[in-house]
Amino acid sequence: MQLKNIVLFGGGNQAHYTIDIIEKEGKYNIVGIVDSICDIGSDKFGYTVLGRVENLPSLIHDHNIHGGIISIGDNWSRYKVSESVLNIVPDFRFVNAIHPSVVIGNTTKLGVGVVAMAGCIFNPKAVIGDFTFFATGAQVEHDCVVHDYASISAGSVTGGYVTIGKLSAVTLGVTIVDRVDIGTNTVVGAGSLVTKSLPDNVLAYGSPAKIIRNRLLGEKFLK
Amino acid sequence: MQLKNIVLFGGGNQAHYTIDIIEKEGKYNIVGIVDSICDIGSDKFGYTVLGRVENLPSLIHDHNIHGGIISIGDNWSRYKVSESVLNIVPDFRFVNAIHPSVVIGNTTKLGVGVVAMAGCIFNPKAVIGDFTFFATGAQVEHDCVVHDYASISAGSVTGGYVTIGKLSAVTLGVTIVDRVDIGTNTVVGAGSLVTKSLPDNVLAYGSPAKIIRNRLLGEKFLK
Amino acid sequence: MQLKNIVLFGGGNQAHYTIDIIEKEGKYNIVGIVDSICDIGSDKFGYTVLGRVENLPSLIHDHNIHGGIISIGDNWSRYKVSESVLNIVPDFRFVNAIHPSVVIGNTTKLGVGVVAMAGCIFNPKAVIGDFTFFATGAQVEHDCVVHDYASISAGSVTGGYVTIGKLSAVTLGVTIVDRVDIGTNTVVGAGSLVTKSLPDNVLAYGSPAKIIRNRLLGEKFLK
Repeated sequence: MQLKNIVLFGGGNQAHYTIDIIEKEGKYNIVGIVDSICDIGSDKFGYTVLGRVENLPSLIHDHNIHGGIISIGDNWSRYKVSESVLNIVPDFRFVNAIHPSVVIGNTTKLGVGVVAMAGCIFNPKAVIGDFTFFATGAQVEHDCVVHDYASISAGSVTGGYVTIGKLSAVTLGVTIVDRVDIGTNTVVGAGSLVTKSLPDNVLAYGSPAKIIRNRLLGEKFLK
Repeated sequence: MQLKNIVLFGGGNQAHYTIDIIEKEGKYNIVGIVDSICDIGSDKFGYTVLGRVENLPSLIHDHNIHGGIISIGDNWSRYKVSESVLNIVPDFRFVNAIHPSVVIGNTTKLGVGVVAMAGCIFNPKAVIGDFTFFATGAQVEHDCVVHDYASISAGSVTGGYVTIGKLSAVTLGVTIVDRVDIGTNTVVGAGSLVTKSLPDNVLAYGSPAKIIRNRLLGEKFLK
Repeated sequence: MQLKNIVLFGGGNQAHYTIDIIEKEGKYNIVGIVDSICDIGSDKFGYTVLGRVENLPSLIHDHNIHGGIISIGDNWSRYKVSESVLNIVPDFRFVNAIHPSVVIGNTTKLGVGVVAMAGCIFNPKAVIGDFTFFATGAQVEHDCVVHDYASISAGSVTGGYVTIGKLSAVTLGVTIVDRVDIGTNTVVGAGSLVTKSLPDNVLAYGSPAKIIRNRLLGEKFLK
């Protein structure tokens, strides 16, 4: 069977592990990388930088591109790139990159543009939004909702009926108890225990997690 | 091959993920749900509520029932239901629901009526008691003993030679170091680090975990 | 296919779970155990104690031994045994024991003499040193370096670009954030959150982890 051709948006480090996932999944053939900074024609992790988002219409034609995925860890940047892609090609097809070891429940709903690294578990009735990112071993319990552009980092786990707002980032080694709602654009710091709901636009951490300060939209959270 | 018929006891949310496990295991055919409150004939997660525990003898006859499993998260309620089932049908056969992703050591001993969600790991020489429940990714290290009706929630891990007493609940994101004994009917709160043994009938939490108060037998611990 | 014969060095409890891994991997046939204390001819977990390290040349001849692995949890002891083996048989071949459930990235580099229990994940571009030990579900993120004779215990996770020094032990349930360097012969206590780099030869723990005291080379860290 002929694999369908896709491109990756973003030639940074996240491209590296996204490539690992896609190669292991064996569903798609990566024709190259679209990036706004890297030199066109340069090599990134074994693949060629084909051009900029503006070049997408001609790239789709030249490389018979079926779809693509955004390989960018920062939630706000992933949002901006998805907007710019859909601005240029409104019906662009975003695919998922789900490591073969990931477990998905029979009633889990998965969006598009989702990247899930090895060992992630999405339980029944969980709703996984579009353009979300899950690092190694992130666990989403039953009846949780992870909104678009949110992320959960390595080793973090939720209880049941947890909501994680749009663009929000649950970082490394976080535990979120049952029935907690985390707002939009909120970041939960590493190793936190979240026992109460958190509002929009805050940075919170600690055990139990406390609000440390407000956060601007688009503020970076990754080191 | 003809799958053997089983019933689930309990039509609440835990039935939902237990169904997911059983369907993925492919060892049993669920003929319906036995529940003390839900309307008989109503639908729960795609299966019909067949009757009450009192109706079990006739249900076994009518549906050619091989066995069953209790899909209830609260440890005390699971205990009470198991007692009432065995009271009515003393030789009732309880089966296990073990997600296909669960890893079991070559010398691990597994009881009956055990529910283990995706990603659980039971290491060699661990002893897993009857009617125990393990949520997503719970890890039981080598030479641990988990007594009957106990539970370990998502993302919790034990060191080696840990004992967890009958009816006790290790909740979400807990770490228990090597050679710690947790008593009977004790609850360890979310995100705790347990560095010393805990007695019977207490609620303990924190890092390190401290005894917060005593607990009555049968007291609820789930939100 | 004829499996290649190996020996285990160390007849203590770690032999038990190492045997479980090797039997599940199905790559090697264990001919017996080499141990400095256990009675020669005695049984350990179903295998016979064949002799001491000093007897290795004749054991290799008599049992057609292809290689071996050290089944000892203490990092310093594992180092000393590896030295004594290589002193007697300089070209001795150390093999790995990697549980079949372990996930390894396409660009991960794996040393020799590595033991990885069920559920471990080694991400792309991680470098896993020789004679390292990883307990249940330990996760090493992308671009990390785990130096020789180091260990990571159950349920511990790292962020990306983390370095763990030679002989150092990350114990149970530890979270290490991105871009942290842990020195040589350092121990991180259970349940810690490591947010800053740690020097050589210290014991550190807490959330965030703080240096508690200095550590001597070869000091025991396991209970």
